[in-house]
Amino acid sequence: MTLQIESSLFPFFRPKGVVIVGASQNPTKLGFGLARNLVQSGYQGAVHFVNPKGGTLLERPIYPTIAAVPNPADLAILLIPAAYVPQGLVECGQRGIQAVIIASGGFRETGPEGAELEDQCLRIALDYNMRLIGPNCIGLLDTHFPIDTTFLPPPGPTPGNVAFISHSGAICAAVIDWARGQGFGLSQLVSLGNQLDVRETDVLASVAADPHTRVITLYLEGISDGRRFVRTAAQVTREKPVLALKVGRYASGQRAVASHTGALAGSEAAFDAAFRRAGVIRADTSEELFDWARALAWCTLPRGRRVAVLTNAGGPGVATADALEAHGLQLADLHAQTKEGLWQFLPPAASVQNPVDLLASASPEEYARSLRLLLEDEGVDSVIVIFPPPPMYTAGGIARAIIPIIYTAGKPVIVAVLGERMIQEAVEYFRAARVVEYRFPERAAAALAVLTQRAEYLARAPETPQRIADVSPERVHHALRQRPDAAEKAGFLPQEVVNEMLAAYGLVTPRIGLATTAVAAAQLADEMGYPVALKVASPDISHKSDVGGVRLNLLNADQVQGAFMEMMEKVGTAVPDAHIAGIHVQRMIPQGQEVIIGAVQDPQFGPMVMFGSGGVEVEGLKDVTFALAPLTRTEAEGMLGRTWAGRKLQGFRNIPAADQEAVIDAILRLGQLAADFPQVQEVEINPLRVMEVGQGAFAVDARAKIT
Amino acid sequence: MTLQIESSLFPFFRPKGVVIVGASQNPTKLGFGLARNLVQSGYQGAVHFVNPKGGTLLERPIYPTIAAVPNPADLAILLIPAAYVPQGLVECGQRGIQAVIIASGGFRETGPEGAELEDQCLRIALDYNMRLIGPNCIGLLDTHFPIDTTFLPPPGPTPGNVAFISHSGAICAAVIDWARGQGFGLSQLVSLGNQLDVRETDVLASVAADPHTRVITLYLEGISDGRRFVRTAAQVTREKPVLALKVGRYASGQRAVASHTGALAGSEAAFDAAFRRAGVIRADTSEELFDWARALAWCTLPRGRRVAVLTNAGGPGVATADALEAHGLQLADLHAQTKEGLWQFLPPAASVQNPVDLLASASPEEYARSLRLLLEDEGVDSVIVIFPPPPMYTAGGIARAIIPIIYTAGKPVIVAVLGERMIQEAVEYFRAARVVEYRFPERAAAALAVLTQRAEYLARAPETPQRIADVSPERVHHALRQRPDAAEKAGFLPQEVVNEMLAAYGLVTPRIGLATTAVAAAQLADEMGYPVALKVASPDISHKSDVGGVRLNLLNADQVQGAFMEMMEKVGTAVPDAHIAGIHVQRMIPQGQEVIIGAVQDPQFGPMVMFGSGGVEVEGLKDVTFALAPLTRTEAEGMLGRTWAGRKLQGFRNIPAADQEAVIDAILRLGQLAADFPQVQEVEINPLRVMEVGQGAFAVDARAKIT
Repeated sequence: MTLQIESSLFPFFRPKGVVIVGASQNPTKLGFGLARNLVQSGYQGAVHFVNPKGGTLLERPIYPTIAAVPNPADLAILLIPAAYVPQGLVECGQRGIQAVIIASGGFRETGPEGAELEDQCLRIALDYNMRLIGPNCIGLLDTHFPIDTTFLPPPGPTPGNVAFISHSGAICAAVIDWARGQGFGLSQLVSLGNQLDVRETDVLASVAADPHTRVITLYLEGISDGRRFVRTAAQVTREKPVLALKVGRYASGQRAVASHTGALAGSEAAFDAAFRRAGVIRADTSEELFDWARALAWCTLPRGRRVAVLTNAGGPGVATADALEAHGLQLADLHAQTKEGLWQFLPPAASVQNPVDLLASASPEEYARSLRLLLEDEGVDSVIVIFPPPPMYTAGGIARAIIPIIYTAGKPVIVAVLGERMIQEAVEYFRAARVVEYRFPERAAAALAVLTQRAEYLARAPETPQRIADVSPERVHHALRQRPDAAEKAGFLPQEVVNEMLAAYGLVTPRIGLATTAVAAAQLADEMGYPVALKVASPDISHKSDVGGVRLNLLNADQVQGAFMEMMEKVGTAVPDAHIAGIHVQRMIPQGQEVIIGAVQDPQFGPMVMFGSGGVEVEGLKDVTFALAPLTRTEAEGMLGRTWAGRKLQGFRNIPAADQEAVIDAILRLGQLAADFPQVQEVEINPLRVMEVGQGAFAVDARAKIT
Repeated sequence: MTLQIESSLFPFFRPKGVVIVGASQNPTKLGFGLARNLVQSGYQGAVHFVNPKGGTLLERPIYPTIAAVPNPADLAILLIPAAYVPQGLVECGQRGIQAVIIASGGFRETGPEGAELEDQCLRIALDYNMRLIGPNCIGLLDTHFPIDTTFLPPPGPTPGNVAFISHSGAICAAVIDWARGQGFGLSQLVSLGNQLDVRETDVLASVAADPHTRVITLYLEGISDGRRFVRTAAQVTREKPVLALKVGRYASGQRAVASHTGALAGSEAAFDAAFRRAGVIRADTSEELFDWARALAWCTLPRGRRVAVLTNAGGPGVATADALEAHGLQLADLHAQTKEGLWQFLPPAASVQNPVDLLASASPEEYARSLRLLLEDEGVDSVIVIFPPPPMYTAGGIARAIIPIIYTAGKPVIVAVLGERMIQEAVEYFRAARVVEYRFPERAAAALAVLTQRAEYLARAPETPQRIADVSPERVHHALRQRPDAAEKAGFLPQEVVNEMLAAYGLVTPRIGLATTAVAAAQLADEMGYPVALKVASPDISHKSDVGGVRLNLLNADQVQGAFMEMMEKVGTAVPDAHIAGIHVQRMIPQGQEVIIGAVQDPQFGPMVMFGSGGVEVEGLKDVTFALAPLTRTEAEGMLGRTWAGRKLQGFRNIPAADQEAVIDAILRLGQLAADFPQVQEVEINPLRVMEVGQGAFAVDARAKIT
């Protein structure tokens, strides 16, 4: 993929002339701040101001109308009361301006009237083939082009390599200030506001195309078109790392759901699955977002997970080792030669085990020599250097001694300079040298883990889900058409339809038949062979065992007849209003490990599959994971690896190994089914009973719901 | 409890005269730094320097020997080569000095010779009834007394209310600098070094006695006497909050273990249990340790979990709400009157739902009025105020407007001022006013959660574990004596002994008998009634089912005889070297929920009990929790609340509610057993089968190992 700015967005990022509509001579107004920022940004194109009052501003004329603005003018920023925005857009359209940032608020965020105004704006934009950013946003800036269309109080960000795309406008000022405080610069910043037209996915590709941008950070409140985002992000992340903070984790409303899968498939599970598919690294806090962005912007990537820790203080060394382990990294085993080399010049009380502890007396030279030896060790993939304010030397001295070594290292080195004010000189040296430093060792370890994650992602060849050949969508279509009251009522599918649907996709269900009398049930059982199970057949009952609608291990015709009658009575009492179609008789299959697989249609990201520990305790144990469907074999394997249910398939204690291949196959097939039939809102196999290796897996119980 | 300085430690904290042995005229030496710090600290007692070279230093004479030092002199600091330290101690002893800080390194940390030196020092200390801090430490300081016996480069900490006790000396300089950078002061700082004599628990009580100390922070690498620490800390935490960072999470070596309980009872589980018992708040990172210390030092405690969020930016408001929920706090439901009040003056687009979003245009007055209304709402227990650099006003202006309201509030208010440099003025106002502020909203939420945790801890009356009356230690002693080869061999106890031991403590085991022939087994089964289970009886087999040593649900004498013979053959093949005492015949008990309870003797904290999800998957699911034994009923209830196994006892879906009381009772009894018999290294009931409410719980299988 060649990343490039989408052509219709080009005037936002590379305008020839910018018109500020609502520019103000009053320095306390945002319309003044906007004009000032654009002029002071060093923007090289034409700058035009519009205000019906006329006059001059910053040594430029103020035009009374948009029509009066001379060429070139290909980007307009509207900072006028919401009610005037539609007229402003019309004038922009008539003037031939096809890119407009609506900075004004007062739209959808204020209620139905504002939403109606937005609709009006969108219609105008369509009429004039115009692209809009906003409303209710603070615009964008680019420190290298350069341009600044925000009204934020100065100073703006220093030029750098981190881009920031945000749904929240108000956070932008903080981001610029955090960046300055943490010593990194920004390349671009885009505030999207209400996203009437241009959305996160649109700008993601364009921002990624910026040659100065090395890392893209996203501050998301949601994603409007999930699959398009995933497709675009998956391409971008092959070129440049993308970090996302998604806020509103707990804010998503509860939906009515009909299955364990549905209950667990909250929007967070979907975001996790989507980010995983797209290679987007998810931060949990704003602090992580920018900690990690800095590391990704400045560091080379490690070749592996083996980390050496170099410290002059035991405690923080151990704390760092803790944090590394917690993030799945390893303390490198140092080569004998490395230890030998360290012994040569370190005092006897120093530790040459990893973490290498130089003691509080460590000199800048000892730091430098030790670091060089560690970097030369082939068993070391990366180094974390730690120092609190040293008692005998200055932190700045240590910084100066190790920076040249870090510069020439082909491996990442992250520094934890503990403290705050006494180490300021060292921090400034490091920042000037683009060496990543943090105040706390745990944050250094977390950042290194992200670098490793990024390296491992790039090392894996991208894969595309392969369509499974031996599935029959036609049979499913047929089954869905055949079911009674198909057209009238959305809801649970009859068991026969579910089984037929699964069978059409190669998911094996045990033999089953529907009986409406006790005698018929016994006859069916005789034909199938014993033991059999009885399960009530009712579209109105989702959790059959909750109402006494399941009987297992029936060994002969008498037991079947007895159980049939009891069940009819129990279920009738428990759910008197339920429509009972009869009772399913099912041949029981051998014991085995039991897992759950399910699929749902996520409103943002479409079909997803779930895998994990099944039974009735699914929501209690929460040992489940999700992936977008359809999925690759590698992704299905990943689902097994992330869950205890999946790891257990390899065998554990006296639980024999089970047929992992059959589980992976079942996940892939269910994913294909969910992808092929968006009308199947939820489908769940619980349990999927997994036989010994090579013996397959059976969908012992399954249900499905259509929209 | 009245907190007070332990009398033998008094000279460390309140010396009348301090002798620096190894004071140096050379400003590049630590011996100079130490002298300088003590003099500059403003210490009001006598300051004496000793160095065989003599001369003067800082306008004071340098005495050639300790003997030559005039009165008063009750604390000595030795900063001389390790080899001379024993002689120095003798001279201190002869001079009548009974408190010595050994700042020198070169002891145990350097190897066996250093350890031998330490032993020598300890013998001298005992001879002279002398207390020692160190060696290999940086001493202590008190900013209020004041005194500074460290050699750290200036500036020292500003006076404040947070005490710091550390196993790591090197971290101390960083802590002083962090504190300065984050705007809080320290009251005392104690570096413990190798802890030859005085340990963390000794100083904990003395530091807590300092009236200037409001919060105590601990940086621990381990705890030398776990139970004493827990006892002391439990008393201290009733008066003052204690925060601990324990490093070396992954460093603990693997021990050989014989049960699930043993496998899961790593030192981290023990520290969690110990801190929970002692009311110590555990931080995971250095950053958390001091973030939380500041909040605890400066904030009033909330009355409940209901938090109002006041922001001028939607995104960070939502991020804060996320973080609050993740920490178990709730967004307060605002009273109609509060919303009404907010409507009066806020613009229409503002949100008066919680989070209250004032919009980016919010003025200092709007912040102030809104905050006042939120604090007046009786449904609000605390408030988080958020602002990025505001576009129209200064952050400092907002700070000035809200500080008086925060001052007079009876509820905690934590501020998240997002950004770094543009908000510096606001930060300085807040710090001067002792208002807690963070740069990131998630950190504010985490700190508020800690305040809430602290409030809830203080609201619970302290409880002492009650001895269970109807247990019979005598029967256990008797059983342990009776077992074959009791004296010779530590290891697994015979099943009869285990059952007798459990029975003596009121833990119900199913009827059981040992059979050595198939016929005898069938006879036993006939007496008990069917169904029965067979289990191989062997001290050498810990996981019976792994080797085919368990058969369940045998319905008649024929099945019992068959199973007996099969089992003997299988087990003989699987574990040919095992000593087989016979096969246990056990009456099977009804189905029910199954849990695991176990107990181990932790090397640091003594007896601990475990509770959680049982079966063979214990280590896979890791749904377990630990508590120190013996324990209170409240603690046992807490164990149920922290685990899915425990919550499930209330019933879930078609799993009926089970006898929680019986489980709590069993946990308490097993805890009593573990506390009474330290020689029982591990004991585990897996499963404990729990009947319906009121029907009790049975120890279906149990094993125990003695040391």
